[in-house]
Amino acid sequence: MLSRNQVSFIRSLADRKQRQKYHKFIAEGDKVVREALQAWPDRALSVIADPSRFDARDYALPPGCAWVDTDKSTMEKISQVSTPPGILVVLRFPDTPPLSAGTTRLLYLDAIRDPGNLGTIIRTADWFGVHDLVLGPGTVEWANPKVVQAAMGSLFRVRLHAGTLVDLASGSSPFIPVVADMEGEALDSFRWPEKTCLVLGNESHGISPDLRMSDALKVTIPKRREGAAESLNVSIASGILLNAWTLQDIV
Amino acid sequence: MLSRNQVSFIRSLADRKQRQKYHKFIAEGDKVVREALQAWPDRALSVIADPSRFDARDYALPPGCAWVDTDKSTMEKISQVSTPPGILVVLRFPDTPPLSAGTTRLLYLDAIRDPGNLGTIIRTADWFGVHDLVLGPGTVEWANPKVVQAAMGSLFRVRLHAGTLVDLASGSSPFIPVVADMEGEALDSFRWPEKTCLVLGNESHGISPDLRMSDALKVTIPKRREGAAESLNVSIASGILLNAWTLQDIV
Repeated sequence: MLSRNQVSFIRSLADRKQRQKYHKFIAEGDKVVREALQAWPDRALSVIADPSRFDARDYALPPGCAWVDTDKSTMEKISQVSTPPGILVVLRFPDTPPLSAGTTRLLYLDAIRDPGNLGTIIRTADWFGVHDLVLGPGTVEWANPKVVQAAMGSLFRVRLHAGTLVDLASGSSPFIPVVADMEGEALDSFRWPEKTCLVLGNESHGISPDLRMSDALKVTIPKRREGAAESLNVSIASGILLNAWTLQDIV
Repeated sequence: MLSRNQVSFIRSLADRKQRQKYHKFIAEGDKVVREALQAWPDRALSVIADPSRFDARDYALPPGCAWVDTDKSTMEKISQVSTPPGILVVLRFPDTPPLSAGTTRLLYLDAIRDPGNLGTIIRTADWFGVHDLVLGPGTVEWANPKVVQAAMGSLFRVRLHAGTLVDLASGSSPFIPVVADMEGEALDSFRWPEKTCLVLGNESHGISPDLRMSDALKVTIPKRREGAAESLNVSIASGILLNAWTLQDIV
């Protein structure tokens, strides 16, 4: 069983300040817990589960990771989702990673505010093999429970970097910024630079004015003749762009 | 001001049963209200707004649509979203529409459960000019407030039909079903039939077994060599498929 202090500590991780202070967060659900144990064995601190539904013997627990059986009502107290799945893992933040060796693709997220969007973009990037993401200033915290939920296990497979557009546009970076913008070159004739950093902007305001006014390359997903929506959701745009950008990997 | 009965009626529209009984629902936010008034002038029954923020003279109210000034605390009572935008419109359900004249593209949604996904798919279809959507059994109700919010004004520009996969596969439909499936032909070499009904499946279970086992055409968005996510979110898949499918409209 969890002690009262443990319950209160895990509950406190629903709060961003606490997560940032202790560099810990939780991920919930059977599949996600399994993926965390596999991908981050040295960062999994403990698995907490309702023994009427989950059995420690079914899991490959890494050394040093505790298993704690906990009754349903305590699980409901410590869960951060509306339908508690009955199992969660407490994780330590990863160290700030270096870029993946030999990577030619970066994805830069400029003030993405909606946690569902960030999580979905992480999942989508993982599908398309783009594993280095830069979270620019104003982007929602990646350890937010809604990000963790939407990213599913992909959160443990990408490398999340901090950075600014100024770093990116400074000329010292080998990556050429390509900005997703309403007024750019049509995606289907666009030629991607060999080392590209694709920049996606904020849901309401688009790309920061700094970069929009620069001479950065711009790419657009053209609206169709009969189309009328004012814009695409940023995670939808990320999927269409990532698909086109990484196509050369499969041909 | 709203009467107590009016407040209670509008609040009751947060409940699906009430919406279905009265064939009414609400849409919130300045932009969405403007789009509803423009696209559905004969279905807009009343606009309810906080006069400290919104002025009736700034809106083109269709004949028969009332404007009701309401204080902030009442707006908070009748709002269905977490941050009430201070303006909403009460709308009558549309009549069951016929297919758009001359349409060659249908999108069939097979038990899409998440309202955010359905709303985002509607918005994306509207961007790509696919305006006929069939909501199969088990799909979340389109008048759900989270659908309305995610669809933005696109909800008023698409035609939502009811239907089943049996109708679709019966042979009497001129549309050829193309199922988005993990094991199909790669999107980039796929040749779309002239009259296609693209079928998207449930978030967890995919396409209904009926159609998966039939000899329907299947299309796949290939995972990349370095990719590891188990699947794509269904709204992300819809964006990538719609982009490829409608490309011929712009070339």
